[in-house]
Amino acid sequence: MSLFRLDASIRDEGSHSRALADIVQATWREENPGVEVVRRDIGLHPLASTLWPLAVTASRLPEGDRSDAQRDAAREAAALADEVLNADSLLFALPLYNFGVSEHFKTWVDVMITDKRLSALKGRHAVAVLVRGGAYGAGTPREGWDHSTGWVKRILVDVWGLDLQTVELEFTLAGVNPALDQFIEMAEEMRVTATREAEELGRHLVAVPSLTEVNDLA
Amino acid sequence: MSLFRLDASIRDEGSHSRALADIVQATWREENPGVEVVRRDIGLHPLASTLWPLAVTASRLPEGDRSDAQRDAAREAAALADEVLNADSLLFALPLYNFGVSEHFKTWVDVMITDKRLSALKGRHAVAVLVRGGAYGAGTPREGWDHSTGWVKRILVDVWGLDLQTVELEFTLAGVNPALDQFIEMAEEMRVTATREAEELGRHLVAVPSLTEVNDLA
Repeated sequence: MSLFRLDASIRDEGSHSRALADIVQATWREENPGVEVVRRDIGLHPLASTLWPLAVTASRLPEGDRSDAQRDAAREAAALADEVLNADSLLFALPLYNFGVSEHFKTWVDVMITDKRLSALKGRHAVAVLVRGGAYGAGTPREGWDHSTGWVKRILVDVWGLDLQTVELEFTLAGVNPALDQFIEMAEEMRVTATREAEELGRHLVAVPSLTEVNDLA
Repeated sequence: MSLFRLDASIRDEGSHSRALADIVQATWREENPGVEVVRRDIGLHPLASTLWPLAVTASRLPEGDRSDAQRDAAREAAALADEVLNADSLLFALPLYNFGVSEHFKTWVDVMITDKRLSALKGRHAVAVLVRGGAYGAGTPREGWDHSTGWVKRILVDVWGLDLQTVELEFTLAGVNPALDQFIEMAEEMRVTATREAEELGRHLVAVPSLTEVNDLA
């Protein structure tokens, strides 16, 4: 068994998405001691912004017609895809930034999609930790302003076919942004709930047979 | 009068968003001969993927506490914001990529938002050219799969307060992707309509007094 983990927070210390992903990972390793965790940190070590344009144009050319830069990009894209394709389970830790997707996660997804082997991901277990500084639920002033979660699920579920579970945490700026001081207690309750869910989802990564396995049994 | 134009297509030749933005720009210049157009091409010359993390952390520190890299990033962010703040009208040419926002446009917006002067943009005229390879309207199989337009308008209109008009073009992959061959005629009609709208919107950039001007008169 192996786990691929991707972190998109640009912070190391104080990152709530990393903290929750740590819990998912720890729970998963309790059940699978000694197995491999492959990490890709696109928040602290972002992919180059020129990688995707080079990789996607390379993917439309015969190998012999590619420039050196396109060849290098295609090789890097394939190595990034290998990390995911070689894993049994996937863990994504993704903050909301400026009401939208992490720029670095969009880049990583764009690069991944240049690889033609991704259909192999269908049915694999995945957990996405989705963290937002404010609150975006029904009835809040920012309802509809989370433009990240819909796209993240579109790619992970509808495009790649992952068997995805999510743990979502909001209001992580309560206690940081004074305008949210009235929500500190609510935010702490949310954090406790998300922590429990993260523990449960670490077990999900191993407890449920994947769709691939179900198909193999059929 | 001056125009700021941003292009996010990773293609030069064959880019539909560039072609439509060219029409908006040409119409605008007919009405304002000899005036300045400042261009920022984030598709062909993407901003570095480390720029935003450095600029946003810099923006939260006193100048004396910033690293050299943070100081450079804050300076670059301010220069990018200057380009926009110094323009009377704004033109954005934005493709949909992988059902989401252009990674390079998200980066540019993230960087812009580190600058505290953006409230000055309120009421300025802007045109966004929004181009999609497939069709995402009501009743189509991909209804709801355009996860870019909502976020783009959220930032340009709700966050920055621009007086935004859009010209939207779909099905630009008809004639390229054989699966869309049945839609070639419809796509051509869409292109003719979008071309006419682009001409009209070039006039919009100059014809309507901006909110700022209205306020100045009040």
